[in-house]
Amino acid sequence: MRPVAVLGIGQTVIDEHWDKSLREIAGEAAFAAMQDAGVEHPDGLFVGNMLSPLVGGQNQLGAFIADWVGMWKAEATKIEAACGSGAAAFRAGLMAVASGEMDSALIVGVEKMTDKAGHDVTAALATAADADYEVEQGISFVSLNALIMRRYMYEFGWKHADFAPFSINAHANALHNPFARLHERITVEQFEKSAMVATPINLLDASPIGDGAAAAIIVPADQVRSLPGRPRIAVAGSAAATDTLAVHSRKDPLFLSAAYLSSKRAYEMAGVERMDIDFFELHDAFSIMAALSLEACGFAERGQGPRLGLENKIRIAGGEIPVCTRGGLKARGHPVGATGMYQIVEVVQQLRRECGPTQVDGAKIGMAQNIGGSGATILTHILKAE
Amino acid sequence: MRPVAVLGIGQTVIDEHWDKSLREIAGEAAFAAMQDAGVEHPDGLFVGNMLSPLVGGQNQLGAFIADWVGMWKAEATKIEAACGSGAAAFRAGLMAVASGEMDSALIVGVEKMTDKAGHDVTAALATAADADYEVEQGISFVSLNALIMRRYMYEFGWKHADFAPFSINAHANALHNPFARLHERITVEQFEKSAMVATPINLLDASPIGDGAAAAIIVPADQVRSLPGRPRIAVAGSAAATDTLAVHSRKDPLFLSAAYLSSKRAYEMAGVERMDIDFFELHDAFSIMAALSLEACGFAERGQGPRLGLENKIRIAGGEIPVCTRGGLKARGHPVGATGMYQIVEVVQQLRRECGPTQVDGAKIGMAQNIGGSGATILTHILKAE
Repeated sequence: MRPVAVLGIGQTVIDEHWDKSLREIAGEAAFAAMQDAGVEHPDGLFVGNMLSPLVGGQNQLGAFIADWVGMWKAEATKIEAACGSGAAAFRAGLMAVASGEMDSALIVGVEKMTDKAGHDVTAALATAADADYEVEQGISFVSLNALIMRRYMYEFGWKHADFAPFSINAHANALHNPFARLHERITVEQFEKSAMVATPINLLDASPIGDGAAAAIIVPADQVRSLPGRPRIAVAGSAAATDTLAVHSRKDPLFLSAAYLSSKRAYEMAGVERMDIDFFELHDAFSIMAALSLEACGFAERGQGPRLGLENKIRIAGGEIPVCTRGGLKARGHPVGATGMYQIVEVVQQLRRECGPTQVDGAKIGMAQNIGGSGATILTHILKAE
Repeated sequence: MRPVAVLGIGQTVIDEHWDKSLREIAGEAAFAAMQDAGVEHPDGLFVGNMLSPLVGGQNQLGAFIADWVGMWKAEATKIEAACGSGAAAFRAGLMAVASGEMDSALIVGVEKMTDKAGHDVTAALATAADADYEVEQGISFVSLNALIMRRYMYEFGWKHADFAPFSINAHANALHNPFARLHERITVEQFEKSAMVATPINLLDASPIGDGAAAAIIVPADQVRSLPGRPRIAVAGSAAATDTLAVHSRKDPLFLSAAYLSSKRAYEMAGVERMDIDFFELHDAFSIMAALSLEACGFAERGQGPRLGLENKIRIAGGEIPVCTRGGLKARGHPVGATGMYQIVEVVQQLRRECGPTQVDGAKIGMAQNIGGSGATILTHILKAE
C-alpha cells in the first residue's frame, strides 16, 4: 500500500439540527475539511451513513453529497456498516488513495437522526441487528446490549456503579469539546440514579443520538510535509474484521473478536504494540462496550475492563490509556454513521495538539475503533504524528 | 494500481424467490463464484445492495453475508449507489486488491425486492432520486425516466416504435440465458401495444424487478494463468463518475455526462478505443437509457442512439456493437443492487465463450456500464481476455 496521510479535518456540532438538512451538515463538515487541507477538488468522495434511506428517504448519498459540495463529475460512493459506517468509509477512501487510483479523497461521515419520532429511529437502528433471528424476537439495539452487560456483570462479578468512570470521564472531557452534544459534568450518584432504559443500562450508560457530520481529506503521505507546529498525520494502521451478526451465534458473546482481530492487524501494520498507543478513541455506545473494547485490544485482562476506569487509568491526566478524550460517544454524541469519522477527526486534533485542557501530553500515536452492530463489524485505525 | 483479474463468477436465476431469503440467494451466487475460482476463504467481502434496509429491514449486509458464507472474521462491507451499487461494490473490491491490502476479494451484488407490495418497492426505488427536490414533487423513478424519454423524442424526432429494437434484442438474447427472468420473444406490435406505465414508457420499455444475486472473485492478475480454453480475464479499465442527483439541475438532461466521463476514463485506463469494444452490457433499465448510454460512450451521435437498433447494429449476429447479450436489464431482469454484478458476470461469460447461441464471435474485450439513479452515479468496466 502507498502510505497515506490525513491533510485536513472538519466537523459540525452534534445536536438536533432542526434548521439544517443532511446535505447542509455534510457540506459544513466537508467544506471545513477541504479548507483545512487547502484542497478544493478532491478526486473522490466516500460517504459513511447508516440511516438516510430509512429516516430521510434518501439513498445514493455519494452523488447526493458530491453534487452539494461542488464535486461535480467526481467519483462518489456510500459505504454502510451500521454504526461502523464512518470508519468503513474512511478505509474505503484509504484503499482508493493507497491503490494509486486517486491522489486525494474526501471522506464524510454524516447522520441526521432527529427528523423522525424516537420509536422510528429505534426501529431503524435495529436494522443493524439480525432481522430474521434477533429483531424478529422483539429485541431493540439497547436491549441487546443490556443482555450483554447483564451477563458480563454476572460472569465477572461487577456491579453497575463500577461502570460509572467510563461515563464520568467522557462527560468531563466533552466539557472542553465545542462540537460535543452534552456539556455537563456527572457524578457516580447521578450515574446510579439516572432513568432506566433496559436493565441494567440506564440513560448515563447510553450514548445520545444526534445530527452531525465529520470529514477528512486524505492524500499520499509523500505529498505532505511535516511543518513546525503542524506534524504530518500518517495513517499508520488500518484494519477491519467481522463477527457473526447475531450475538447468540458467538461462542463467547462477552469477547469482541472483531475488535481483537482488527486491532491486532492494525498494530502489526503500524509496527506498534498496544503500550505504544498514547490515547484511544473507543466506541462507548454503551458503557459495557467501552469495557469490552479495552479488553479485546489488550489494555485489560478478560473481564477486567471496568478496573481501568476505577483505577483512573483512562483519564487524560496521568492515565495509562486515556480514552474518549473529546467526550466519546457518550458525551460528544453518537450520530451513528458519522461516529467513526468523528473519532478520526479527534485523533488528528490530539496529534496536532489542538485540544487545550484535554490535550494528551506528548501524544504521538492515537487509535480509533468504530463498531457496527453489537460487534459484528469492527474497524481499527492508528494514526501517527510524524 | 496492481493489475487485477476475475477468477470466478456465480449467479442465481432472477425471479420471485418466495422460498429463499436474501442471505440464501446471496450465498448461492457467492458459493458458485468461490467454487468457480477455487477460493474457499477470500480475504474480504464487498456487498452491493440498495434496498435491504427499506424492503428487508436489514442493514450491515457486509457482516450479515460474511457470516452466512462462512467468511467468519474477514473484512466485509456494503456499498450503495442506488442501481449502481453492484459495480460500485466491484470497484471497491478492485481497489482493495489493487492496493495490496487483500489478495482476494469476493464481491456480491444482491437484491430481494418482491417481499413487499409493489407500491412500497416503487417508493423505495424513489430514494435513488432527490428526496427534497424531486420525490417531494410526487415523482417516481419511472415517471422521471418518462420525462427524459418524452423530451428526447421531441428534441430528436423519434417515435415510440423506434425504441423497439432495444427491447426486442434484449428479449431475443435472454431466451438463451438460463438465469434470465423473462424468456419470451417479442415483436414490434407487442412493444407498441403493451400496457402504458408512464407515458411514453410502457411495460416493454421497462425492465422487470426481481430477486437475484451475482458474484465474482477477484485476485491479483499475476496469480492467474491463462489456460487453454480458459483465458485470463483482466480488469483492464474501471472508472466511476457522478452527475447532479436531480435531473432538473443538469445543463443537458439528455446527455449522460457521467457515462461519458467514466467510459472515457475506462477506455484510457484499458488503452482501448470504443471501436475495440466487442460487446457492451449496458444499463437498459428503460429503453431511453440504452440510447443515452450508447451516445455518451461514443457509439452513436447525440440523439441518434435509436438508429443503432433500427439498423441492426446492436445484434449479436453481425452487429457493430452487440448489447445486452444475455438479456440486459430488460429481459434478464433488474434486481437493482445486483445488476452491476450480473453485467460483470455476463462479460466474463462472453470472454470465456460460454454463451452458446448468443456467443459474440471472437469476443476479446467487453464493457459493462452500471447506472445509479437517473444517471447520477455511473460506473464503467472493461474486461479483457488474455
